[in-house]
Amino acid sequence: MNTRATTVHLSPSEALTALRDAAPLVQCITNAVVTGFTANVLLAIGAAPAMCDLPGEAGMFAGLADGVLVNLGTPTAEQRDAAREAVRATSAWVLDPVAVGALPVRTALAAELLEHRPAIIRGNASEILALAGAGAGGRGVDATDGPDAAAPAARALAVRTGGVVAVSGPVDLVTDGERIVRIGGGDALLTRVTGGGCSLGAVMAAFLGVCAPLEAAVAASALYADASERAAALSSGPGSFAVAFLDALDATAASDLDARVALTAVAR
Amino acid sequence: MNTRATTVHLSPSEALTALRDAAPLVQCITNAVVTGFTANVLLAIGAAPAMCDLPGEAGMFAGLADGVLVNLGTPTAEQRDAAREAVRATSAWVLDPVAVGALPVRTALAAELLEHRPAIIRGNASEILALAGAGAGGRGVDATDGPDAAAPAARALAVRTGGVVAVSGPVDLVTDGERIVRIGGGDALLTRVTGGGCSLGAVMAAFLGVCAPLEAAVAASALYADASERAAALSSGPGSFAVAFLDALDATAASDLDARVALTAVAR
Amino acid sequence: MNTRATTVHLSPSEALTALRDAAPLVQCITNAVVTGFTANVLLAIGAAPAMCDLPGEAGMFAGLADGVLVNLGTPTAEQRDAAREAVRATSAWVLDPVAVGALPVRTALAAELLEHRPAIIRGNASEILALAGAGAGGRGVDATDGPDAAAPAARALAVRTGGVVAVSGPVDLVTDGERIVRIGGGDALLTRVTGGGCSLGAVMAAFLGVCAPLEAAVAASALYADASERAAALSSGPGSFAVAFLDALDATAASDLDARVALTAVAR
Repeated sequence: MNTRATTVHLSPSEALTALRDAAPLVQCITNAVVTGFTANVLLAIGAAPAMCDLPGEAGMFAGLADGVLVNLGTPTAEQRDAAREAVRATSAWVLDPVAVGALPVRTALAAELLEHRPAIIRGNASEILALAGAGAGGRGVDATDGPDAAAPAARALAVRTGGVVAVSGPVDLVTDGERIVRIGGGDALLTRVTGGGCSLGAVMAAFLGVCAPLEAAVAASALYADASERAAALSSGPGSFAVAFLDALDATAASDLDARVALTAVAR
Repeated sequence: MNTRATTVHLSPSEALTALRDAAPLVQCITNAVVTGFTANVLLAIGAAPAMCDLPGEAGMFAGLADGVLVNLGTPTAEQRDAAREAVRATSAWVLDPVAVGALPVRTALAAELLEHRPAIIRGNASEILALAGAGAGGRGVDATDGPDAAAPAARALAVRTGGVVAVSGPVDLVTDGERIVRIGGGDALLTRVTGGGCSLGAVMAAFLGVCAPLEAAVAASALYADASERAAALSSGPGSFAVAFLDALDATAASDLDARVALTAVAR
Repeated sequence: MNTRATTVHLSPSEALTALRDAAPLVQCITNAVVTGFTANVLLAIGAAPAMCDLPGEAGMFAGLADGVLVNLGTPTAEQRDAAREAVRATSAWVLDPVAVGALPVRTALAAELLEHRPAIIRGNASEILALAGAGAGGRGVDATDGPDAAAPAARALAVRTGGVVAVSGPVDLVTDGERIVRIGGGDALLTRVTGGGCSLGAVMAAFLGVCAPLEAAVAASALYADASERAAALSSGPGSFAVAFLDALDATAASDLDARVALTAVAR
């Protein structure tokens, strides 16, 4: 099992520098809607994407990859088997439980995969509530609940899995069950582009290649807040924003990241 | 079965305003080539896309969705079963019979799905002719016949299904079997971007969430004509056009829509 | 079996002019990550893409298509069967053996398909070495070996299949086993966009519709070198590059192609 790099503690700036040096190999078992955008996001940040999602290959590849994303957006039967293989082969993986709650196939799969202890779970508040057994799930990928409403569920889920839970929203919330980190900023245009959230899970998987789960989730969220703000300033709508966002991810100065993004660690 | 909103009569301007207010949930069972672009189009117009295409989930989701698209571009075995579930669960659905005629798997599926009476059928002239049993089908997604050549077949198909048939081309033609509406304008660059037609079917499904099928098909066609012209004016090729088109869909003033697009209802 | 247009010898400029006149129908059995970008690339160069990858349809369609791409990036069980059908129905096909070597499913499939003698094999050096049995394969789609390191393996593979082998890298290398053509230039931003290599295979398949395999592989490589340089000059990062690249493919003056790109035929 791949157990690399799970205990290194880095600030977002340090983490981005380390990621660009390491060019981590990131395996994505993800939905058909966002594969292209997700791969482009990973290339833009300096990672090496591989969308290896076949049974018979996914487990082997997960053992080689620096980080693995399992996103449940459109989990075909083959992808479900591939996910089962992959999570047995690595501890450096991110679960994105897209639209769990109301929909039975993915909800059952999420429950099953959860037993394999994802390093990070990333979702919107509705998804985290549903996964924790505390809500009914959203309608599709929309969040119908705010991140803070999901804080208790996120902490309980983190304690239960021994991992980190990241709740995306206007202010992102990341917790390991003890610490809670909030990352503000970012631009709402990111919610007008398909894959805005799904690709964030992939970026968290990339950061798992260079630092511990809490730092990985925070660095990814900080990078998204920073890049989405700069992209929005250059955009005239959701189409040009998606293009500018990829350019901004590529152009982000790692040294700016800590200063630009306010991280608030709240002991509770 | 979801039978919402099938009898409201709105002009294109009124329909777009209603759509932006309602943010309809649109389920897409669509081909692998255009999923990302289609989702981005739906987000740009103010709808909420969900590409839920799994057997065991698709029927349940169709009952919740405000509109459903079934596009036969690359119908895997799982998608075919998902489509069968979905069309049993809603009457608010659009059939896009991509490349029917020559290719046996999708042609048989289209014939089967047709029995479940799509609210709207959208295709190019060759596809409509083939679906009506009056032509041999195009080569891939190219139209080899013009929209007017398909008018009699479109009317016959509309009468047979009790729904609306929309034929895409230089001038779009929409008919419910009695009325024929033609929507002119638009820019040919839309045919140089993959998903230009496929995403139009998704937009028609979105409008089914707020108005009756004839009005939904007309509003979607009018929006595409308007947005594609404005995008073309800002573009230097098919790549920049696709980006500008998403921006234009987002920026379209609903109040301009009726005035900018000439609708010609022809009694025949 | 489709055996059209395999012996016409054209310069890159002549080939591009012929392609735009003929608008060849190109069937792609390709991976989920790059389908949209690949279709847009084909539309931009003036070809007609069709991503027909279903068992029961793929063989029939391959007999109609002017060129066929079989790309092994994410070969689902259905795609594997579709590929088997297609390569029996045409000789005008391109094999892109993505990530062969380490991963067993695609490696076995590539070996099987190779018996059906692709007109062109396109890959990076690691993939060509692995396919020729001379290397361990790359990590995902990254090349870990340079094109010249793969020259002997490429020539051996070309002799074995009776086709052409194209090795992508900073300088592209194309060989039919006797002649070696090198195509320099191009911009590295093409490696920062997903599908940069995969779509090149599709463009080679398009050129197979108008000229012989060696000329088709060279023309496609020359077009990519030319368009990627012009796009890079207008770009501020990988996002805007991908957009500008599509525009550049559309705008390339065929008459410029021979003059701008240095072709070095080396007798060895």
